Amino acid sequence: MKVALLGFGTVGVGVYGMLDGAYGLEQGPVLVRPGKDDSSFKVTEIEKIVNDPSVGAVAEVMGGIEPAFSYVSAALAAGKHVVTSNKALVAAHGPELAELAEKNNVAFLFSAACGGGVPFLHNLALATESDKILSVGGILNGTTNYMLDAMQRRGMDYGDALKDAQRLGYAEADPTADVSGLDALRKIMLACAVAYDQLPAEGLHNEGIESLTAADVAHFKARGLTCRLLASGGLSDEGRVYAFVEPVLLPASAAECAVLDNFNLARYQGENSGAIILIGQGAGRWPTASAVVRDLSCILQGQRTMMQAGCPRVKADNSACSRVYYVRLPARFEDMLPLKEAEKDGDLLRAVTEPMPVSAMHEAAAKLRQAGAEVFFAAMGE
Amino acid sequence: MKVALLGFGTVGVGVYGMLDGAYGLEQGPVLVRPGKDDSSFKVTEIEKIVNDPSVGAVAEVMGGIEPAFSYVSAALAAGKHVVTSNKALVAAHGPELAELAEKNNVAFLFSAACGGGVPFLHNLALATESDKILSVGGILNGTTNYMLDAMQRRGMDYGDALKDAQRLGYAEADPTADVSGLDALRKIMLACAVAYDQLPAEGLHNEGIESLTAADVAHFKARGLTCRLLASGGLSDEGRVYAFVEPVLLPASAAECAVLDNFNLARYQGENSGAIILIGQGAGRWPTASAVVRDLSCILQGQRTMMQAGCPRVKADNSACSRVYYVRLPARFEDMLPLKEAEKDGDLLRAVTEPMPVSAMHEAAAKLRQAGAEVFFAAMGE
Repeated sequence: MKVALLGFGTVGVGVYGMLDGAYGLEQGPVLVRPGKDDSSFKVTEIEKIVNDPSVGAVAEVMGGIEPAFSYVSAALAAGKHVVTSNKALVAAHGPELAELAEKNNVAFLFSAACGGGVPFLHNLALATESDKILSVGGILNGTTNYMLDAMQRRGMDYGDALKDAQRLGYAEADPTADVSGLDALRKIMLACAVAYDQLPAEGLHNEGIESLTAADVAHFKARGLTCRLLASGGLSDEGRVYAFVEPVLLPASAAECAVLDNFNLARYQGENSGAIILIGQGAGRWPTASAVVRDLSCILQGQRTMMQAGCPRVKADNSACSRVYYVRLPARFEDMLPLKEAEKDGDLLRAVTEPMPVSAMHEAAAKLRQAGAEVFFAAMGE
Repeated sequence: MKVALLGFGTVGVGVYGMLDGAYGLEQGPVLVRPGKDDSSFKVTEIEKIVNDPSVGAVAEVMGGIEPAFSYVSAALAAGKHVVTSNKALVAAHGPELAELAEKNNVAFLFSAACGGGVPFLHNLALATESDKILSVGGILNGTTNYMLDAMQRRGMDYGDALKDAQRLGYAEADPTADVSGLDALRKIMLACAVAYDQLPAEGLHNEGIESLTAADVAHFKARGLTCRLLASGGLSDEGRVYAFVEPVLLPASAAECAVLDNFNLARYQGENSGAIILIGQGAGRWPTASAVVRDLSCILQGQRTMMQAGCPRVKADNSACSRVYYVRLPARFEDMLPLKEAEKDGDLLRAVTEPMPVSAMHEAAAKLRQAGAEVFFAAMGE
């Protein structure tokens, strides 16, 4: 099957290289911007790909929502299979694209959009064929894991950890989507869509690591705890999807604590399989390319679907999950949360809350910040 | 697709139950021993399954080599897809069965035979379509992991840990295959066959945990090390397969140390994907059944092959890998190994060797034992 590429950046160059050695796949034309068409295999017009009958599949690795959405739509409408690594695109337009793929009897797969090289969505989609998925989640952002690990193991402060991540190419010049948890949130949205045939698109919460200080980390470390940024998704007892991202404090025996540097960990809990944990590189040229090419191999084997056609967008219900939270806040704000064990640290309070709904904690933190309080919070893991 | 079962023990009952809720699959007849046919869906003659045109696939979960081999051969010859959880069968007859499956244009898949509920072989087979597999391995025996974890975290001695594992149903009345590393060796043989299209069948080495004492574990623990029984496979620089099982001492940051109780961890290193680690339940009714049923879902999606037809049996070359070993032996035998750092502990020596070939260490231990020495050894992990 000849595979055309949309984009020839970090991931695209990797996919193009891997196609050469992959069983049953071959390199097709590559869409680039005008002026970058310095080789005969590069084209600058999407029509050259969409109208090329020799192209069987299109790998979209350009990123962004437009023109990726228009291009992918055109490729599916023309009867080409599509794989993508673009989480923003699938989070925004996945249901329509899945429907278009079904109508045209072609595949729409996006493993690389969640967990990079970790074969998470592929296995999750396969598990849904025969098992009930009780929950999904994990460390889905490598940049913040790199930073948390540097703060934990090397005692770095937040600013230095961020600079280090940027120097190594793990963090963008504008790291907001990573450090705010938004990137991980988009990924857990996709995992929920695969697991539950519902795309949570409202009522979501993401708390990142921007408020974390070296003093906080030292405090956790002294208690044998490690901070990780975890995405969580699942179904409430009433069948409503929940999906959120927040820091979690874990004991040393947790598998998440063994996830170092910029690695990712994805997990699902199957009613029959039990906990299944997958660890690997969440980003980078070759790992991400390997996920894109694995999806192409799956198309050759016959897989067509990852998200159901017309998968509905739903409002998440994050009040359905309760957690005990660790909170660090200015002592004068202590009445704004149901605190149980509190410890003074100068003007600060380090406290643990009564069990409280996830949505209530995230909303309380927003209120505290509006009132001028600097707050860090993390769920207490098991 | 109607699925017949061969065997109705722990795993069979699980598979039968899961078929009821699995997409595209339905419960077929179940082969049991005469006298156990107490329900209308149970049959006692293999012909009732092989000659039933409504049966599309057969799940072999009876274990043992005969009559499983004859029955599976008959099913494949009759044009039925076959999935199996039987590692002894696949290690002994996989190449012939894969060939028979290819001839009859049906599938022969065996994910559940290596790693139980962990979707290892499925992902490994998929990865080989587009990536070069540099190595395979992991914790592939849950019984010994349970025992090692009990010795490490609860300070149990070997005998009590084994009794505890037997009480919980993790270890057989005769635990030899588990504690000697033979069970894990069979599994890594299968992983090598999937990864390298060669089934290592000679020249293999398995060192188990039978020589491990509570004093050894206390010694490792004081140095921040954890002992795990790891299977390893790969290709030497000359393209020859290596495959062996041995205890390994790991620092606390290793993912293997987060594998507690009877969980399994399987890993492969892809040239492009990098390290991919999968963790889950390695045994038990529902996890193992979930792997069997996942393979059936893969057949529906179009997958046919896990081991290549006619995969050759080869002699492993375990001299191609070198390791530094930790060795505990009677002090009077110290000249029999290239020891570097040695420490007296009464009449015992606790020492670290120079780097030495895996085969040389296993053979030296055999010689030491012939000479009457009680020896424990473990590779030093990274």
